[in-house]
Amino acid sequence: MKPINGGICAVKGVYSGGIKPGKMGLGIIKAEGSAAGVFTRNKVIAAPLVVTRKKIAETGSLSAVIMNSGNANAFTGEEGYADAEYMTELLAEKLGTPKKLVGVASTGVIGRKLDTEWIDRHIDEVLNSISNSPENSNSAARSIMTTDTFTKESAIELDCGVRIGGIAKGSGMIEPNMGTMLAFIYTDAIIGSDNLNKCLKTSVDRSFNMIVVDGDTSTNDMVLLTATGKSGVELDIHDFQKGIDYVLTDLARMIARDGEGATKLIEAKVEGAQTENDAQLVAKAIVRSPLVKTAIFGKDPNWGRVIAAIGYSGADIEQDRISLSFSDNENIIDLVTNGRITKNDNESLDTLQNIMENKEIKIHINLGLKNKDATAWGCDLTYDYIKINAEYTT
Amino acid sequence: MKPINGGICAVKGVYSGGIKPGKMGLGIIKAEGSAAGVFTRNKVIAAPLVVTRKKIAETGSLSAVIMNSGNANAFTGEEGYADAEYMTELLAEKLGTPKKLVGVASTGVIGRKLDTEWIDRHIDEVLNSISNSPENSNSAARSIMTTDTFTKESAIELDCGVRIGGIAKGSGMIEPNMGTMLAFIYTDAIIGSDNLNKCLKTSVDRSFNMIVVDGDTSTNDMVLLTATGKSGVELDIHDFQKGIDYVLTDLARMIARDGEGATKLIEAKVEGAQTENDAQLVAKAIVRSPLVKTAIFGKDPNWGRVIAAIGYSGADIEQDRISLSFSDNENIIDLVTNGRITKNDNESLDTLQNIMENKEIKIHINLGLKNKDATAWGCDLTYDYIKINAEYTT
Repeated sequence: MKPINGGICAVKGVYSGGIKPGKMGLGIIKAEGSAAGVFTRNKVIAAPLVVTRKKIAETGSLSAVIMNSGNANAFTGEEGYADAEYMTELLAEKLGTPKKLVGVASTGVIGRKLDTEWIDRHIDEVLNSISNSPENSNSAARSIMTTDTFTKESAIELDCGVRIGGIAKGSGMIEPNMGTMLAFIYTDAIIGSDNLNKCLKTSVDRSFNMIVVDGDTSTNDMVLLTATGKSGVELDIHDFQKGIDYVLTDLARMIARDGEGATKLIEAKVEGAQTENDAQLVAKAIVRSPLVKTAIFGKDPNWGRVIAAIGYSGADIEQDRISLSFSDNENIIDLVTNGRITKNDNESLDTLQNIMENKEIKIHINLGLKNKDATAWGCDLTYDYIKINAEYTT
Repeated sequence: MKPINGGICAVKGVYSGGIKPGKMGLGIIKAEGSAAGVFTRNKVIAAPLVVTRKKIAETGSLSAVIMNSGNANAFTGEEGYADAEYMTELLAEKLGTPKKLVGVASTGVIGRKLDTEWIDRHIDEVLNSISNSPENSNSAARSIMTTDTFTKESAIELDCGVRIGGIAKGSGMIEPNMGTMLAFIYTDAIIGSDNLNKCLKTSVDRSFNMIVVDGDTSTNDMVLLTATGKSGVELDIHDFQKGIDYVLTDLARMIARDGEGATKLIEAKVEGAQTENDAQLVAKAIVRSPLVKTAIFGKDPNWGRVIAAIGYSGADIEQDRISLSFSDNENIIDLVTNGRITKNDNESLDTLQNIMENKEIKIHINLGLKNKDATAWGCDLTYDYIKINAEYTT
């Protein structure tokens, strides 16, 4: 397996393009194949998700996706469903494909009617631009950005020649923030929609769900996976799983790194848990804690906040079995070993502070119970997060 | 029932005092009587809580409490227990009371050894100062402050003459922030420890637990209730419940209002829920949401964030039955009625923005299902929250 360039357009059979001239953006991805989707668990679910989920459930396939930023088309009632359906009809007609094979995704402000006239005015411009060049994966990724500060693309080629590529948006900080997460993943492997579904769900649980916790997702979160089959290769499902895990984790880390106002990526790796769920609870509690996040922003070696987060995570723990260390790419410092404070002198706190100077900070926890592990990603909580979110709609 | 001055010292039989010369603070409350306590559900539980919980479980009584700020004596191993026991022994000896009747509470940094020598040096100064004057309730309240910006005291007199008074500290923002919440409540009613326990638990669920969610509490959260019996009045337990509800809710609102960096108090009142638990889930999800909190800080009329929080709260909801309005003390604006957007024109958003100019903002939700309700309190999320928490220990 090796990383390659080109995002979704690295995958055979994928054509895309997009524009983002202002607050509103419009993107199109054309790629025929079997398909699977994972949708928000928020009970207020946006119209585009209801529409897309229904189509995929019916057909197990997609031939294109139309997506917009600037308006989430969420909590918009009957009119919202009509607008989402309209978007799929519009693209279906232009492409000469059945509308039941066209998905739709939206991200932006909740509770405002979608400006479909704007979409009418711009769809031909986007359609005329679509191609399978790397630049076009990028323009599609750019078209769905909201407060994202960079486009998020990832692609790999497996040893058997199969390629997997994805684009994503989302710079809402990790849960419980509600910044919508969208991801569109493509592969040219030959895989049916049942296997796609299984692999996608497994992979989302290890990647996107470790930055945005179940049940705390936005009204519009959606991940779609389409297999064009154009490589002609039917591969071992475990190899495919490894590949898709790589791409989704890569995109998930980009989303965490681009958290609203973020200056640092935080990785919390938990080992020695009694169950995988416990490991996930602890890892997520750490990257979710406003006190851990602000401490890391301030390079404040106040590691007790990590211990407190472990304690309230809901996982089974034993205080006197916990080990804790921090690291960057060069240094590691052990702070707690089997519940005993290893180092708390000024020199150690200085080392910890130096580690905190980095852009990427790893927190290692061993709960000392059994052998289950999990990793979660988040970012620091900064002045700019407040600025972005106090001044977003108006 | 009427509010009165004097905090805990308004209650017959309560003597207190405290000092807060710098980061460390020391306070003492002397009041003999039956007692009850509620302790953190964090699995990393601080030494003073373990020690105090055990004593109250054994004796059902307290004759005094010693408390310090500046160090939480949490995650401090065997030494921590010894230090907490030492504090109770020290005060017990000075007061000539059994040490099993002396409680201890600490708040501050986690994972650092307590400076018991500092306590040795200052205990006589505090002991010599204790009295039942209103100023001494205030000095006790001040001694346990950490990032609090004002002391928190409340007292009432019931129609039967019984008084209930309390002091509290805590300016950690609402859950999942870990700022320790301590509260010491006194009454001169005649009540046994079983009834005290029941009333205290009920009241904490309606007040402090609606600003700091279960399972997300600090390592050191503790509420103690002592009944001196000095009024000579044995009252109806329901009247007592009303009184203690008033005092605890009053203190809880003060804590929310004094959230770290807060400029506004947010009250979320949820009605029409299927169960009380659902009502609590929704109310707490709203005041916990960083996006709602930053919107209110920024006076941004982005009410869709409230709808999103309702959706991910975990409660049973039906999107098309939700009603939503905002109010201050003078104006109210209905935004959503039975799932339909009532008003979203510029004039309405201006009215909403005007409401958001106030120091106290009420959000009303009716889920339109059954008749259960709950209220939660929180505060806005501001630049100063980041400042305080990025720069706390160092």
